[in-house]
Amino acid sequence: MSNKTGKMHTDTSIKMILDRWDQSIKSADQLFEQLSDDALLKETSPGKNRGIYLLGHLIAVHDEMLMILDLTREMQYPELYGPFHEEPDKAVSNLPATSELRTIWKTQCAYIAQQFAGVKTEEWFSKHTRVTVEAFATEPTRNKLNVVLTRVIHLQYHLGQMVLLK
Amino acid sequence: MSNKTGKMHTDTSIKMILDRWDQSIKSADQLFEQLSDDALLKETSPGKNRGIYLLGHLIAVHDEMLMILDLTREMQYPELYGPFHEEPDKAVSNLPATSELRTIWKTQCAYIAQQFAGVKTEEWFSKHTRVTVEAFATEPTRNKLNVVLTRVIHLQYHLGQMVLLK
Repeated sequence: MSNKTGKMHTDTSIKMILDRWDQSIKSADQLFEQLSDDALLKETSPGKNRGIYLLGHLIAVHDEMLMILDLTREMQYPELYGPFHEEPDKAVSNLPATSELRTIWKTQCAYIAQQFAGVKTEEWFSKHTRVTVEAFATEPTRNKLNVVLTRVIHLQYHLGQMVLLK
Repeated sequence: MSNKTGKMHTDTSIKMILDRWDQSIKSADQLFEQLSDDALLKETSPGKNRGIYLLGHLIAVHDEMLMILDLTREMQYPELYGPFHEEPDKAVSNLPATSELRTIWKTQCAYIAQQFAGVKTEEWFSKHTRVTVEAFATEPTRNKLNVVLTRVIHLQYHLGQMVLLK
């Protein structure tokens, strides 16, 4: 493989995964617009998670993602982590209003897009904050780009559920 | 970027995506084992696709994927494409037995693993069969590795739904 080819494939790989992130966020935005606040308060299937829980859960996971990517030093929405990540749905009674979660979602997506745009090629392939230098030396897949990849998959998994609210 | 670094990132990117494929298939296998034939005949949510439809749909999409990757010349299960891809759920009354679909799923997964193992680095970054040489020249992300990436996302989207049958 020539130097040029290796560089080209590296750039292509980053674009493939970031494109999936962008596209998944776009799908989520379109879906959330189609779902009324009432629809988001319904269960995706009888006895299963409600839409509002999944919306808050996605925000909490993406908030944590920014720290794992070393793009933030602390959680931006720490008050959401307990009710939407540590606790299951319906365990916490006083959740934020759906309208508030919608606003946070949009603000967060814009912030993430801005942050992602500033990450350089080598940084995407550097270790994330939850892996040690020693472990990363033998497992180079535990890089920042892979964190985005797994979060895309996580997002699509839950979008598959939220689409059932339509 | 040095020649060595470019090659390393290229190999890392391929491993990241193929690992996600393997892991997603493993998650699917575990889920399908937990779901009885009766559970697979239920709807994922009232009025929505049944488990059996999604199982057949995944087989049909992965069958087509092999052709898009140029790993097969024709569909291995052409009889499934109509009822599980072209048609919506419940449009076709005489579907194959769930036990038959389970067997095909396992056979197909083993076949795909075998085929993937034989694909070389440069092949993963070469064009898939549904894009022209001209379009690929300006859009290198339309490669075979990206086909696997989008099918992983598709699989996880539907696994998010099938898990609701538990």
